[in-house]
Amino acid sequence: MNFTAKQIASLIDGTIEGDENAIVNDFSKIEEGKSGSISFLSNPKYTHFIYNTEASVVIVDKNLKLEQDVKPTLIRVDNAYESVAKLLQIYQQMMPQKKGIDEHAVIAASAKIGQDVFIGAYVVIGENAVIGDGTQIEAHTVIGDNVSIGNQCHIYPHVTVYHGCKLGNRVVLHAGTVIGADGFGFAPTPNGYEKIPQIGIVTIEDDVEIGANTCVDRSTMGSTYVRKGVKLDNLIQIAHNTDIGENTVMSSQVGVAGSTKVGKWCMFGGQVGISGHITIGDNVHIGAQAGVPSSLKSNQTLIGTPVMEKIPFFKSQALYQRLPEIYKQISEMQKELDELKKKNK
Amino acid sequence: MNFTAKQIASLIDGTIEGDENAIVNDFSKIEEGKSGSISFLSNPKYTHFIYNTEASVVIVDKNLKLEQDVKPTLIRVDNAYESVAKLLQIYQQMMPQKKGIDEHAVIAASAKIGQDVFIGAYVVIGENAVIGDGTQIEAHTVIGDNVSIGNQCHIYPHVTVYHGCKLGNRVVLHAGTVIGADGFGFAPTPNGYEKIPQIGIVTIEDDVEIGANTCVDRSTMGSTYVRKGVKLDNLIQIAHNTDIGENTVMSSQVGVAGSTKVGKWCMFGGQVGISGHITIGDNVHIGAQAGVPSSLKSNQTLIGTPVMEKIPFFKSQALYQRLPEIYKQISEMQKELDELKKKNK
Amino acid sequence: MNFTAKQIASLIDGTIEGDENAIVNDFSKIEEGKSGSISFLSNPKYTHFIYNTEASVVIVDKNLKLEQDVKPTLIRVDNAYESVAKLLQIYQQMMPQKKGIDEHAVIAASAKIGQDVFIGAYVVIGENAVIGDGTQIEAHTVIGDNVSIGNQCHIYPHVTVYHGCKLGNRVVLHAGTVIGADGFGFAPTPNGYEKIPQIGIVTIEDDVEIGANTCVDRSTMGSTYVRKGVKLDNLIQIAHNTDIGENTVMSSQVGVAGSTKVGKWCMFGGQVGISGHITIGDNVHIGAQAGVPSSLKSNQTLIGTPVMEKIPFFKSQALYQRLPEIYKQISEMQKELDELKKKNK
Repeated sequence: MNFTAKQIASLIDGTIEGDENAIVNDFSKIEEGKSGSISFLSNPKYTHFIYNTEASVVIVDKNLKLEQDVKPTLIRVDNAYESVAKLLQIYQQMMPQKKGIDEHAVIAASAKIGQDVFIGAYVVIGENAVIGDGTQIEAHTVIGDNVSIGNQCHIYPHVTVYHGCKLGNRVVLHAGTVIGADGFGFAPTPNGYEKIPQIGIVTIEDDVEIGANTCVDRSTMGSTYVRKGVKLDNLIQIAHNTDIGENTVMSSQVGVAGSTKVGKWCMFGGQVGISGHITIGDNVHIGAQAGVPSSLKSNQTLIGTPVMEKIPFFKSQALYQRLPEIYKQISEMQKELDELKKKNK
Repeated sequence: MNFTAKQIASLIDGTIEGDENAIVNDFSKIEEGKSGSISFLSNPKYTHFIYNTEASVVIVDKNLKLEQDVKPTLIRVDNAYESVAKLLQIYQQMMPQKKGIDEHAVIAASAKIGQDVFIGAYVVIGENAVIGDGTQIEAHTVIGDNVSIGNQCHIYPHVTVYHGCKLGNRVVLHAGTVIGADGFGFAPTPNGYEKIPQIGIVTIEDDVEIGANTCVDRSTMGSTYVRKGVKLDNLIQIAHNTDIGENTVMSSQVGVAGSTKVGKWCMFGGQVGISGHITIGDNVHIGAQAGVPSSLKSNQTLIGTPVMEKIPFFKSQALYQRLPEIYKQISEMQKELDELKKKNK
Repeated sequence: MNFTAKQIASLIDGTIEGDENAIVNDFSKIEEGKSGSISFLSNPKYTHFIYNTEASVVIVDKNLKLEQDVKPTLIRVDNAYESVAKLLQIYQQMMPQKKGIDEHAVIAASAKIGQDVFIGAYVVIGENAVIGDGTQIEAHTVIGDNVSIGNQCHIYPHVTVYHGCKLGNRVVLHAGTVIGADGFGFAPTPNGYEKIPQIGIVTIEDDVEIGANTCVDRSTMGSTYVRKGVKLDNLIQIAHNTDIGENTVMSSQVGVAGSTKVGKWCMFGGQVGISGHITIGDNVHIGAQAGVPSSLKSNQTLIGTPVMEKIPFFKSQALYQRLPEIYKQISEMQKELDELKKKNK
């Protein structure tokens, strides 16, 4: 489908510099821009690409200052990143959505299936499961007995939702995600560990998106909670009995240990580890690879293991790197001190 | 099903305080306790919840001291956590167990299937595979050629067991686990890496439980071993040619590199990394996120990267956080020293 | 199949010490060597095993010096490790390869399937997908619409390749790997995060091997690239918009954040974390668990968080462990200094 720069500008409330009739039919990264495609420039790191890009149209921030002429038509907007997000959403909505139930799917007779769903090949849906209207379940996903799934969800291939778990509306689960596997609970005995059955569930509220191969474990009793609007990246571990607050975002490979409560609007970088049985406040930002051994109050930005505030952390880190030199200084000071002491006897 | 406090007390050898006829039909966390449910109190952190819980019955430790009256019936036992584990096990055993072979399963004619098994929809079982009595294989699991699986195992959906691997009795594998993928072995050549075929297997002994999306790689030759009673959490990497000793427990996201031998009764916290080609003794406990670069003797509790004993580690960590202040002190000492030296010339 | 030591020596251009008619029909690790098997000795750490091994034949380096007589026939070669790799490759090639299309597979009518392929039970292949000659797709793998896969690829069970992604020739994907899930992109709004659709793809070039449960995310627009000859271990995260250079190798549980460009012939140890929006040069070696916060030039070997050169890192690490002792020294120096100052008033 072809769009002119003018048409696009009107969708995102932008002003045009250059040929308003420039035609595009694809998106491209600015550094790979091709004729006929639209790109965007948001991160100042990439500004230099605008002078060479072959893209026909580039969306830029209103206040971008150029140092020389550029070839593409520019569309200036308040926030280039948000405008591109909006365009991509429009584009996505134009894509046809799959509907219908594949003949190769095993759906228990007692399951309740909503209107306008898509259920792909080899999907298995267990006894008494409930699937909401407009929900898409792609090939090979397994929905356990007594699971309930809301409306307009999108579940990608090879997802497993264990028995009894509850998903809200507009939940997205990417391929290979496992919801509701047993929490890791064992009691030691002299002959080995004894399993503590995990009879709780996982509750995933509305508008949650969970990446590929991430695991959210079922509670020992009651429920593990992933609250409204949470976004989890790939390969994350959410242990049993946890409660992840609204609109919290975690990057890939984060691990949250059992029975921990995380507040709202938190943001955890990649590979962060959070201890069990602690409470993290709201709006806590934690840098990549950090380790959090104990509870944290709201409204902090922390980094390191154990987590510290940013500026002292970077100071400590810099001095850590200089330890050999500092130690040499200490040794020399010691010598001088010893000599002075001799003189002063 | 309803139980009275009296019936439950007799199951776990407890003594009752309060109404022995209180009726429960569900479990709940103490902080979410509802009327008609039984809770427990084991971690002293949660003691305050007992004064407000709506649970009808709470299992507590024999020596718990209360500071005010409580509403629920109490059942006092030697160890509340163990008693709840026992009750949960009884509850779990009362659940009906699935049996039979789903019509949508592809089982090689040469495979040997035991008595009283459950084989779910779309399971694939390869040539000459052996499945023991009472084993449950849930939907979508793939069992390769020549795999042997013991009795009373429970394999959840979407597990892959590659050809030739051996599982003992009562092994539990959670969803998405991969047993026997190729070990990571490549030889560099000027034109790129050349694959070293991995022709060994994985041997998983009796009573092992492995979490969701965990990977145990096949050996280059011979076998990778996961010994009797080992418990692995989710998203763990066990590389090829390793040997994980009896009753060792690893939390989520641990990685053990190739050819390493881990002893018995070890316990590794989340995200720990263990180098390749080393030997870890028995009963070694390693704190979360630690890195282990070299072999370790038995009977140690260690933490940090590289691992250290706990008390020196916490001291070093505290001083690390104070490095900016310490460095300032050193700089001031240096000045004072220089002045003294001048005076003493 | 039986081979004599003489036959094997001729395959790998080795010289025999001992009985050239010794017969083997299996491989074994040297420490577990059984009569009738062939082992190898490459890592000097394991040399002592040669004096007790029951293996009938052992491949060793040309210049290995023995301190006493050994029982097995030795085959001396330039590089024992490479020779074993070669033998294993020959052995692997002798294994029968599966062919044909399982009757339980759902292949879109518009898909183009090459010659001599294997397509296992319950495989799903989407609209307009292209599968090259000699490619093996094992049970339960899901190939999305418009995916193209080259020749001689081997895709293990439970892999998901999302729509539109492109794989070259001789690509190996192990079980549970997810290629092309949405990149992690959300824009904050006062009411929660808004999804940024990810309309790009993943391009995997020739001769790439990817381990079990690893994730490579699709680009926001354009493509995420995994270049020729890259080898990725299990449970790795490759975020969207990244470009992983030719012949780069990553151990298990590495995470590479979004929009980062990694050069050729790099080597990352287990659990390394690489920040987003940076550039790593060619031939950069990074030790296990390191954290890389910013761009790195080519031809370096680094370790730690943030990464440092090896020798200063080990010095800093050693001094970190001695911080309590060093701090004590500083405190004593301070006292002495204070005394001297008094004397010198």
